[in-house]
Amino acid sequence: MSLLHPIILFYLKKVNNVTKIFMNTQYSEEPMYKPQYFDEIEEEKFVQVLETKFSAPECVAAAVECLPPYLSNTLTYCGKEDQIDVRKFQYATIRDYADAYTSGRVTPTEVAKRFLTSIEDSRKMSRGLNLFISLDFHDVISQAAAATERYRQGKPLSVLDGVLVAVKDEIDCLPYPTTGGSTWLGKARQVTKDAAVVKRLRECGAVMVGKTNMHELGVGTTGINPHYGATRNPHDMTRVSGGSSGGSATVVAAGLCPVALGVDGGGSVRMPASLSGVVGLKPTFGRIAKSGLLPLNWTIGMVGTLTGTVEDAYIVYAAVQGHLPSDKLVSIPPPATLPLLNDVQMEPNIMAKLIEEIKLAKFSKWYNDSDDSVWRVCDSALRLIQDTYGCKVVDASIPDLDKMRLAHYITMGGELTASLGVEYENLGRKTTGGDVRSTISIFQGFSNREFVTAQRLRSRCMQHHMEVFKEADFIVTPTTACTAPPIRDDAEQYGELDYQHGGRSTI
Amino acid sequence: MSLLHPIILFYLKKVNNVTKIFMNTQYSEEPMYKPQYFDEIEEEKFVQVLETKFSAPECVAAAVECLPPYLSNTLTYCGKEDQIDVRKFQYATIRDYADAYTSGRVTPTEVAKRFLTSIEDSRKMSRGLNLFISLDFHDVISQAAAATERYRQGKPLSVLDGVLVAVKDEIDCLPYPTTGGSTWLGKARQVTKDAAVVKRLRECGAVMVGKTNMHELGVGTTGINPHYGATRNPHDMTRVSGGSSGGSATVVAAGLCPVALGVDGGGSVRMPASLSGVVGLKPTFGRIAKSGLLPLNWTIGMVGTLTGTVEDAYIVYAAVQGHLPSDKLVSIPPPATLPLLNDVQMEPNIMAKLIEEIKLAKFSKWYNDSDDSVWRVCDSALRLIQDTYGCKVVDASIPDLDKMRLAHYITMGGELTASLGVEYENLGRKTTGGDVRSTISIFQGFSNREFVTAQRLRSRCMQHHMEVFKEADFIVTPTTACTAPPIRDDAEQYGELDYQHGGRSTI
Repeated sequence: MSLLHPIILFYLKKVNNVTKIFMNTQYSEEPMYKPQYFDEIEEEKFVQVLETKFSAPECVAAAVECLPPYLSNTLTYCGKEDQIDVRKFQYATIRDYADAYTSGRVTPTEVAKRFLTSIEDSRKMSRGLNLFISLDFHDVISQAAAATERYRQGKPLSVLDGVLVAVKDEIDCLPYPTTGGSTWLGKARQVTKDAAVVKRLRECGAVMVGKTNMHELGVGTTGINPHYGATRNPHDMTRVSGGSSGGSATVVAAGLCPVALGVDGGGSVRMPASLSGVVGLKPTFGRIAKSGLLPLNWTIGMVGTLTGTVEDAYIVYAAVQGHLPSDKLVSIPPPATLPLLNDVQMEPNIMAKLIEEIKLAKFSKWYNDSDDSVWRVCDSALRLIQDTYGCKVVDASIPDLDKMRLAHYITMGGELTASLGVEYENLGRKTTGGDVRSTISIFQGFSNREFVTAQRLRSRCMQHHMEVFKEADFIVTPTTACTAPPIRDDAEQYGELDYQHGGRSTI
Repeated sequence: MSLLHPIILFYLKKVNNVTKIFMNTQYSEEPMYKPQYFDEIEEEKFVQVLETKFSAPECVAAAVECLPPYLSNTLTYCGKEDQIDVRKFQYATIRDYADAYTSGRVTPTEVAKRFLTSIEDSRKMSRGLNLFISLDFHDVISQAAAATERYRQGKPLSVLDGVLVAVKDEIDCLPYPTTGGSTWLGKARQVTKDAAVVKRLRECGAVMVGKTNMHELGVGTTGINPHYGATRNPHDMTRVSGGSSGGSATVVAAGLCPVALGVDGGGSVRMPASLSGVVGLKPTFGRIAKSGLLPLNWTIGMVGTLTGTVEDAYIVYAAVQGHLPSDKLVSIPPPATLPLLNDVQMEPNIMAKLIEEIKLAKFSKWYNDSDDSVWRVCDSALRLIQDTYGCKVVDASIPDLDKMRLAHYITMGGELTASLGVEYENLGRKTTGGDVRSTISIFQGFSNREFVTAQRLRSRCMQHHMEVFKEADFIVTPTTACTAPPIRDDAEQYGELDYQHGGRSTI
């Protein structure tokens, strides 16, 4: 490798139009490749198959039938606040809302109005939560009114009817633009229809309450946005929400909506969920239609759900999963399955026995690498599961994760810059926060060979995980190695590139 | 982009182990992604489905049943040479061999001996054809003897029994090493079993006659190899065979074997086939198991067939297609189909009508860009097809092909260097020919962003082709824009990097 090498390459690329075609031209196509996944190792028992032909409300109905019977929540949610025991903090669930709506104790319109009042209150604070990038009060009220009318007629569309759902500003949702947390992307790209996942939720009657704040372009883990403010952690307003789906995690953690959608490319749903104590789910690639998402990457990001409880993640997953007829690619996965969670649909009293047989793989290194405050909580949670349900814990080892982290970084870099590079250079770079600007600059510094090697490492790590799943049913792990880091004074203005905490958030 | 940028990047890559993990470590995994393809636009009629459960001989039997009835060839092949009209040059086909073997006019052993004598004669020439990199005379004779015995017992395994097949030295075939045309790869990588395609051919009784010469590492289009000699064009020994599957094309073009296997990553089967007047077929990705191929790339290369006639390509394709049970990926294509080529299995006399309805798409730019001698021949061939069969010719336009050529180059570069980079640097570079060394050096000069953009362009060009196939059944085109270029005097020693002719060979 001589000094002449880059000069010759520069010349060759120029005369052969490589620079023009590969760096200065904007394309609309996705890459020709898609990630592969492996067949199920064995056929699943005691599951509900979500057949492709099922509509979204049918999927939700099937999911609800798999759940244990509903036990009325002692929370009355609206009205009689003096009855709520604040020491026993608990999120109202989707079934709580549906029960309250059906019984007429409260209407979707009342809930929506109360939500909007809370948002207004938060905006009046000097250092508010900075939850939403855009929110149309009239639109929310009109959706809620329609839901109220359906309940009045005794015809709700599903258990999600009238339930408030916040949407990360990376997912198309009318009547809003999709900014990706930037100042320019919302203008450069027109939103003409709802994303596929939003469409499915609307079919279930859910009320879309606006577009949540996020780390600019999804490139960061703090949720500090120089244009729309830092999304603050509702448990401690001096700390970050985490990112990139910080607004979505916080709106659920603050109890304002039971459900929010995020997008997770490298922990962007799971990290903020972990840092604010809600449930974050990133489903398998291909399980959810990606139509109507910002093309920040193609093989990494996936719509994820943020909910107060696992039960709600179960219901919302059933609603949003499924692919489109236009996804005419051959590698469409088989229909999704949900585990049955009540004895009625199985053999009597088999539930406890099945749960007892569950094997949890614990990768001790992940525990040891975490802060004391983190691993202690995780360890005692694990012990609680063992003692309560009798699940077995097996030791697992997942090698090459340090390599995998770099492979992920290089992949994200190649995909993001190939997708947005041209417009970013022409429209976006000047207004972009310093942290994101630096990261994108590094993103461009890898070679085609390094990119392909990263894809080989992804294969290898997928194999490592498959090995663990031969011995166990779940991998249990702290989601982040630290709790929410504090927001520094100047971070809100300049952004923050904190690889130290970032790394510890993405174990 | 400042001067500091590469220096900072160099430092960051070093301290974060990127250089060690992505440039200096050898991996065995394939990348996690695979190319996607589209569903058939409509259901095919009048085809024979090669069901996944069919064995290789069953596939071959099904293929032969679809062919028009066999008309005995006037060539007697062995013995009575004075009867052959050399002006009417014609290749003996697989069915000619099977007929001759079955009737007892000649045995596989006699054919094999004669083949070996010709190879010996060629080796004695001062500037021979340089067809084979390795060839074990005893192994060929013993396979042929087994075939002879099967015919003696009246139990041939298939119509391919006793037929000689040459294998490009990029495909594993015992008892030989697989050199890829290099001096080092055959030692660095052990061959422990036959490639999947070779296994299938052996199940049909085919006789594997050795490993053919190729452009070093498949990186070139001339077939001039500094270690194993230039494979010369049998029609004019001063000209190249083309590459990279030059030896396989020439062994068929010279009439020594009716069948050879090649691998085509960017025309490596089709180009040498065209330059020496035989039939080269590159099947669709995923149609043929790639187990046992040198990992020169993952998403581009595909085993292809070289035969004297289209009928033989049809039979050999049926034999080698099919995937392995170990290809447990979800995106396995539906079973292959073969067009029925006789009236018996269809409605009576429908054949002529069906052929009349075939629409051929002619992309005039490809004709105009070709040398006069090339487009005149192609144009008159096209007119002959129209006049004889009444097929319609429609005008087609395929945009972005200039972009596609670069996208292909960048993809090949990323995949080849990610696959062989470490061993190449440690073992191979010093002994590698100057042309291949220069190309590999350029291959490494593209970024991750350029690689991903190349994959987007592949998507786009696949769409462009799908558009053409809505209006037409075939795209007709000259395979190369020029006839075989001459071999320059010093090329055999130093290799040759002739992008001018190379480009014209890969239109």
